[in-house]
Amino acid sequence: MQFLIRFFGSGKNEAQLTLIRFIISRFGYRPKKISYFEQAITHKSNANSKYIDSNERLEFLGDAIIDAVVAEFLFARFPNEDEGYLTKIKSKLVSRKTLSEIAEEMEIRQVLRYHKGRSININTLEGNAFEAIIGAIYLDGGFEQVRQTLEQHVYRKYVNINKVLEEEIDFKSKLFIWSQRNKLSIDFEIISEVNKGSSWEYKVIVLINEQKYGLGTGSSKKAAEQVAAKETLELIGVI
Amino acid sequence: MQFLIRFFGSGKNEAQLTLIRFIISRFGYRPKKISYFEQAITHKSNANSKYIDSNERLEFLGDAIIDAVVAEFLFARFPNEDEGYLTKIKSKLVSRKTLSEIAEEMEIRQVLRYHKGRSININTLEGNAFEAIIGAIYLDGGFEQVRQTLEQHVYRKYVNINKVLEEEIDFKSKLFIWSQRNKLSIDFEIISEVNKGSSWEYKVIVLINEQKYGLGTGSSKKAAEQVAAKETLELIGVI
Repeated sequence: MQFLIRFFGSGKNEAQLTLIRFIISRFGYRPKKISYFEQAITHKSNANSKYIDSNERLEFLGDAIIDAVVAEFLFARFPNEDEGYLTKIKSKLVSRKTLSEIAEEMEIRQVLRYHKGRSININTLEGNAFEAIIGAIYLDGGFEQVRQTLEQHVYRKYVNINKVLEEEIDFKSKLFIWSQRNKLSIDFEIISEVNKGSSWEYKVIVLINEQKYGLGTGSSKKAAEQVAAKETLELIGVI
Repeated sequence: MQFLIRFFGSGKNEAQLTLIRFIISRFGYRPKKISYFEQAITHKSNANSKYIDSNERLEFLGDAIIDAVVAEFLFARFPNEDEGYLTKIKSKLVSRKTLSEIAEEMEIRQVLRYHKGRSININTLEGNAFEAIIGAIYLDGGFEQVRQTLEQHVYRKYVNINKVLEEEIDFKSKLFIWSQRNKLSIDFEIISEVNKGSSWEYKVIVLINEQKYGLGTGSSKKAAEQVAAKETLELIGVI
């Protein structure tokens, strides 16, 4: 009876209800138009593919939306990093590898609709379906909703952003960590900045307890500091 | 007096007022926080780069936001095209070449702040500043505002999307155009569709006035149709 009420009351079948529960629990979002989400979990190998569209178009959309949300997230989180750093971290966070790991962790396979052929790599399918579900949330709830879903749910529960960042730790940070451990003061001093027409050239030196160590040159202060930090780490035998 | 009232009344200097007018006229958007836009037009070669941040971070952000807006625009505009087609058109619309052309057409150089060195390619700088201005509009007005700006202003006034699409015209469209000119009927008939485990194989034949012409095979109906249309165009001597 319970079943009948739900079935007829909501106009949704059991598979749809399962899908709705899944999206709520994993993405913190209650689907309005369920057909978007049914499409998002339908791989083209699915036997129904002649009647239900596959998730490939939604994957195309979701991919671009994820990119934009991650770009903004990193832009806000790292106000002092240059675009080279932001680009590097973004490419890690939106990589096929990272997305597939998220999708696996979420167990998207529980709701995935696909034809179980021999050559199917289920984890790739999950990663694609993850992007497609984000595309569906965008169509169903808008950009702000995707932002909220990714920041409040996905990246909080399924991605260790700090781990990704740690892998990217730079020479300057390494040097600061070393100096704190050894209770030494570190300073980066700009020796010169020269206008080279379309660009600048910066020369930076590292001072440890006011003693000169590594020297670095670069087209930005940050780049020069990295080179100087690296040379210093080499000079003191840390790397 | 007029000048003094505007100067002191708004708390903005003449350069800022010029910039605001420029953004309104080209992007249909009235800046709220002018500093975003000042940063967006500041190339790193600018003499003030030590004090005002360059536009590189905003360019990083704008790039991703443009990508998302264009993806959604194409997703909605081409409901029957597959993600391969959408990806191809998107990559054209967001290419460095297209963005630089838009920026040149907008005459962003009028407001660009950069150091006039010998090796500067002004058009590249304009393209980057265009992306950065979109990043600024996003921070200042949100995603929906960017969408509106791009769709209602930029793509209407500065990009001939139809021209981009025409360059991408496909064999099927070519065949339809030919058949209309020659007052012949064209049909695409599916001969077979076979489930190959993780994918499908479609065979399609072209009928001109119910006579069989080119044959095509592909993993989607659309792909098979393209092959069949191409073969037909070859058979009838059009290509």
